[in-house]
Amino acid sequence: MPELRQNIITREWVIIATERARRPDEFIRPKKATVPVPQFDPACPFCPGNESMSAAETYRVAGEGGWAVRVVENKFPALSHEGDRVRSIDGVYRSMSGVGFHEVVVEHRRHDLSPALYSVGELTNILRAYRQRYMQMRKDPRVEAIIIFKNHGESAGTSLAHPHSQITATPIVPTQVRHRMDEAIRFFDETGECVFCTTLRRELADRLRIVATTDSFVAFIPYAALSPFHLWIFPVRHCSSFDEIEEHEITDLAATLRTVLGKLYRGLNDPDYNFSIRSIPAREGQREYFHWYLTVIPRIVRAAGFEIGSGMYINTSLPEESARFLRGVTAE
Amino acid sequence: MPELRQNIITREWVIIATERARRPDEFIRPKKATVPVPQFDPACPFCPGNESMSAAETYRVAGEGGWAVRVVENKFPALSHEGDRVRSIDGVYRSMSGVGFHEVVVEHRRHDLSPALYSVGELTNILRAYRQRYMQMRKDPRVEAIIIFKNHGESAGTSLAHPHSQITATPIVPTQVRHRMDEAIRFFDETGECVFCTTLRRELADRLRIVATTDSFVAFIPYAALSPFHLWIFPVRHCSSFDEIEEHEITDLAATLRTVLGKLYRGLNDPDYNFSIRSIPAREGQREYFHWYLTVIPRIVRAAGFEIGSGMYINTSLPEESARFLRGVTAE
Repeated sequence: MPELRQNIITREWVIIATERARRPDEFIRPKKATVPVPQFDPACPFCPGNESMSAAETYRVAGEGGWAVRVVENKFPALSHEGDRVRSIDGVYRSMSGVGFHEVVVEHRRHDLSPALYSVGELTNILRAYRQRYMQMRKDPRVEAIIIFKNHGESAGTSLAHPHSQITATPIVPTQVRHRMDEAIRFFDETGECVFCTTLRRELADRLRIVATTDSFVAFIPYAALSPFHLWIFPVRHCSSFDEIEEHEITDLAATLRTVLGKLYRGLNDPDYNFSIRSIPAREGQREYFHWYLTVIPRIVRAAGFEIGSGMYINTSLPEESARFLRGVTAE
Repeated sequence: MPELRQNIITREWVIIATERARRPDEFIRPKKATVPVPQFDPACPFCPGNESMSAAETYRVAGEGGWAVRVVENKFPALSHEGDRVRSIDGVYRSMSGVGFHEVVVEHRRHDLSPALYSVGELTNILRAYRQRYMQMRKDPRVEAIIIFKNHGESAGTSLAHPHSQITATPIVPTQVRHRMDEAIRFFDETGECVFCTTLRRELADRLRIVATTDSFVAFIPYAALSPFHLWIFPVRHCSSFDEIEEHEITDLAATLRTVLGKLYRGLNDPDYNFSIRSIPAREGQREYFHWYLTVIPRIVRAAGFEIGSGMYINTSLPEESARFLRGVTAE
């Protein structure tokens, strides 16, 4: 019998399609004959020595050769950092000037390195760059939401080989974020507790879906995971905004990410994935009901008409089996 | 300057990325060397003569050779039509037995025909089958929502070549549908009007984004389209539930679909796409505030980490330009 599960945090239902469920190892990506990627590409704007080919640099973590991580403006930004927020309301048509930020984090000097192979120190540098740019963007009063995300591989929507992630700051709060805040507030008003903290406590007690833990972070497959190997990484300490992450937590998050990405890389043969950091809107401060977190979505299956027509997902894997499988994979 | 637009119906914001926008003809799918698909495949469970290979038939439109359209149960259904709705609440874990329906509409006898090449009569038969099964499923008190959808092509999530669509009936109302009803009710309470009717009136007055019209239907690109060539087809008559479509409207919808799919096929070189019918939840009747419609989403671009992390979309096309382009393409 198939089962529907509701995610108490997002309120979304998912169909766990037991009749068509596949074993975890059936999701391993087939070996592809890929063109080898060089360590250095003279035409790549993100490779060392080509710094003048990218747009203005906004931040760098120093390192051998000049930098270890660079943050640069996107050459074709989705939002512009010049201008005012101007709303226009003309009957049913509502618009706003596209002010905000859109930057690229060049994660590594090597053109060909998969993030799963970064050291904890390298990941720490990347996370520090995220925090630094998040803090800066948050100071701009036009910014309402900051989204940090990574697209790894073609199925995840990237076209550039050099490992990079992106930071976008928008002048509005996305509707989905508003809906989730409403849900979190409702839970808090009913129970006096943060729904994220409550979920984390329960997942840690059950241990059925835990993939990896450090002192400050827990990586797990949500009970109502939307797709195979959909992962959440929660900070243990209740904290609403990503930029309030502490230095020792950055190191722990780097270690957790290394484990999680390593397990995906080795267990599923380097799948394409997206990750993103979900944080409270920029103008909000610390709130009892909201907890930032990081989500990782391997792009193993494709959303289709059912998902588009309903906003619901069909998951052809069992979260508990996927978690057990990943626990059994060594990250190194 | 990029522009953010808000869809007043869904309340979702989209970034219209003018700095990276592409001309409509830049979205034309490159010619691919594809393996020719035969008109008949002896191994295909949906081909004529192979009827015994598919699961139980629930409906058929009679035609030459026995049938013109068949509806059959999905062999690997995401939901089971046997059993009761049983809720389980265990702290933060909420689940429900996966009862419902999951059927496949075999649209045509020909194994290789693109839906863009169906006649209006053939499309009429398919729409009649949709209506018939929708009406039947709606009578089942366990059913809360019915989603009719089609996946055309690999990027749209289909693996079977024989042209088919699907009907799924779920025992819960998807959260996204609830959110949209809330928005529609709010608009109605504020203005006394249906937000869909109001939008349609305005789009018809402006004519900037209209793609095709018949007496009963209007196909247009929404002002805040989420992706290139994202299309909506609205019934002109206010009606909440798809199964209340009238016979003359079915013919008009078939003609509209033929025009829209034909324009996509010829203008963009047979792109992959999904379509789905969005209707009021099954237990609701006619409501002043809610209007069913059909949405078509060509899968030309890929949602990536930004969309996953925010629920917002970045659209690299201008809705007005895309509509003008499609108006200029002949459907025949």
